[in-house]
Amino acid sequence: MNFVFFVFDGFDALDVVGPYEALVRVPGSRATFAAPERGIVRTENSALNLSVDTAIDEIAGCDLLLVPGGFATRKLERDQRVLAWLRAIDPTTRITASVCTGAMLLAAAGLLRGRRANTHWAVRQRLLDYGAVPVAERVVRDGKYATAAGVSAGIDLGLALAAELAGRRVAEAIQLGLEYDPDPPFDSGDPVRAPAALRLAVLAFLRMREMQCGV
Amino acid sequence: MNFVFFVFDGFDALDVVGPYEALVRVPGSRATFAAPERGIVRTENSALNLSVDTAIDEIAGCDLLLVPGGFATRKLERDQRVLAWLRAIDPTTRITASVCTGAMLLAAAGLLRGRRANTHWAVRQRLLDYGAVPVAERVVRDGKYATAAGVSAGIDLGLALAAELAGRRVAEAIQLGLEYDPDPPFDSGDPVRAPAALRLAVLAFLRMREMQCGV
Repeated sequence: MNFVFFVFDGFDALDVVGPYEALVRVPGSRATFAAPERGIVRTENSALNLSVDTAIDEIAGCDLLLVPGGFATRKLERDQRVLAWLRAIDPTTRITASVCTGAMLLAAAGLLRGRRANTHWAVRQRLLDYGAVPVAERVVRDGKYATAAGVSAGIDLGLALAAELAGRRVAEAIQLGLEYDPDPPFDSGDPVRAPAALRLAVLAFLRMREMQCGV
Repeated sequence: MNFVFFVFDGFDALDVVGPYEALVRVPGSRATFAAPERGIVRTENSALNLSVDTAIDEIAGCDLLLVPGGFATRKLERDQRVLAWLRAIDPTTRITASVCTGAMLLAAAGLLRGRRANTHWAVRQRLLDYGAVPVAERVVRDGKYATAAGVSAGIDLGLALAAELAGRRVAEAIQLGLEYDPDPPFDSGDPVRAPAALRLAVLAFLRMREMQCGV
């Protein structure tokens, strides 16, 4: 099975590394990172850079496509070359997945029209602009589309997909190998349970970062 | 504040990306990835490669040092250049941290002697070989040393350190930004709660991978 992880300048590292860690352990799988161009791909915060050997034009199909998010997705939503590639690769996949604002790229490509989907909580309602149906669940499935909530939700997504592809037993073993028995220090990870003031502060910060990223 | 993330061929991606995602959002911080040599650094499963601009010899000190794990740590435990660098940098830090088998490198460098520490559950007892005291907690603090359990525990570590460095309010905001409200698909992430058969299967797999990695 070929798993393709799409990356681009400004992607969020954990969005892709979370599901990657689960999926790379699926027996018989092969992971490929593909970017608009070969070479160095910078993450959102630019301290962490990937070296990517494969350009998206070299990928004609795959069993699983994973699209991460990051502030740069706001710009990529208008990148016709990337959107055309997503539309071309999607019919070849068994599963098309996204983490965080990666869903906005799938949506902008027209792949989520009329479908239930999720993305980062701060932009969830923007899914409506592309005819998708926003759903506040950690991992949303609609047909072969699997869209996870923000950033860290990609780990839960990756394990769920590992179970689907390789069986529950294998996925449980992967979870144990990753010692994924989370113990968040605070109860602030969900926007509904978080205090309103905290939610507003994070929204303001995210908007500022978006502007810094020129969107 | 300067945060240094040590990486090396064969490191585990999530070990470092988990805490990185939390810590890179600490206001006034600067993250640097440093490897034994500049250039391409390959992760444990080699599909994901980093491009690293800084060699460890260029780093004389930092506020926070984070050491990830991976099968390669078994070899690095005997790498005198790396161990000497860890010993040299440690006195300059405010916090010296590890995720997963990264603790074995801190221990091999002699930094955890007589201290409480944790690492991946599968190798926890090996901490005794270096005079450390194994403790089965998700994040173990002993003085300025913070050692997390396996792989995914780095996210919990990163948020705890963010709170220590920037205050609880900031850490809560980071957790909300990362939408870290985990929902593991299975209850298999803890070796004590996991069925014995699963635990043995994972141990056997890990040993096989260690052998494949030439250790």
